Amino acid sequence: MKKGVLLVLSGPSGVGKSTAVAELMRHRPQLRFSISATTRPARPGEMDGVHYYFKSRAEFDAMVARGALLEHAEYVGNGYGTPAAPVDKLLCEGYDVLLDIEVQGAMQVKRARPDAVLVFLAAPSFEELERRLNGRGDTAPELVQRRLETARREFQFADRYDYLVVSDKVEKTAGELDAIFTAEHCRTSANFTQRKEE
Amino acid sequence: MKKGVLLVLSGPSGVGKSTAVAELMRHRPQLRFSISATTRPARPGEMDGVHYYFKSRAEFDAMVARGALLEHAEYVGNGYGTPAAPVDKLLCEGYDVLLDIEVQGAMQVKRARPDAVLVFLAAPSFEELERRLNGRGDTAPELVQRRLETARREFQFADRYDYLVVSDKVEKTAGELDAIFTAEHCRTSANFTQRKEE
Repeated sequence: MKKGVLLVLSGPSGVGKSTAVAELMRHRPQLRFSISATTRPARPGEMDGVHYYFKSRAEFDAMVARGALLEHAEYVGNGYGTPAAPVDKLLCEGYDVLLDIEVQGAMQVKRARPDAVLVFLAAPSFEELERRLNGRGDTAPELVQRRLETARREFQFADRYDYLVVSDKVEKTAGELDAIFTAEHCRTSANFTQRKEE
Repeated sequence: MKKGVLLVLSGPSGVGKSTAVAELMRHRPQLRFSISATTRPARPGEMDGVHYYFKSRAEFDAMVARGALLEHAEYVGNGYGTPAAPVDKLLCEGYDVLLDIEVQGAMQVKRARPDAVLVFLAAPSFEELERRLNGRGDTAPELVQRRLETARREFQFADRYDYLVVSDKVEKTAGELDAIFTAEHCRTSANFTQRKEE
């Protein structure tokens, strides 16, 4: 069984990531997504193991301590992280897995799994990103500015990613993500490590 | 202007390289091929600068001496090599360039141009390669055996390539080569070097 590709996708709020990923799923229906662990309480309708793995603070901290998370961060007093075991299980079953996480998390995953493929999804320009954020119509100008600042700060890390995909026409963007998966499956590093393991 | 990708394709005789490349050209009509320099005399119908750059021995040796060839080798008393200048010109004009060369040449290109992308085209198995070589019907059994020996020897170098593509169904093989070009254009190394140069 050939192992799947672990792909980490980061990109600023408003760049069009979910649209691109939805289109990518039409090319790769077998693609799987990782499910985060969190200490925040479940909201109505959220199911454990579907939307999140809901953990107590003690459970979460124990996972961090024993290295059971590929990455983790604190956000408004709650812990969030990516459990390694379900991701590894999917990869070993041959599924490609997509992690949708921000820059600091991506750097942690790369340290934990050097064979992870890091893709940065960028807007064609910051002006265009601002236009998209404003175009939503539901975001306060102050929040737009804060998101732009975050986007500029995070873009400083883009050269630590393996790939930079520009979020332009959605078909083109999804096609490029699809090509990255295909190419990564052809990497000799993937193929020869594999053969030794067989 | 974004620089093109230099892709080196190697693979044993009989693996189906020309068929795969012909199919790839339907996806990427803008793809260009490098033209070799050679000291062997032109055959009837062969044109200088189209089929080969025909050089005298003195001209060829001078090119080798001044590092004007990306790779070179001697074959039955004649020199063959890939002139760097036309390849660089095409790359700078934004064209992707494909070099169809054997293993030793590929290793030379990688030393001369570390950003070259090396793709090894392999048969699904050596048994299948033998079947394809015999299936041609025009190859003497002795020659088939010699080609198989060469194929086994060259496959030892496959792990020095960036990608290993299995030559199976031609549409799949061409699709994988196409994806490798697309993915390589998204490489951050390509994009960020580019930006500094602009």
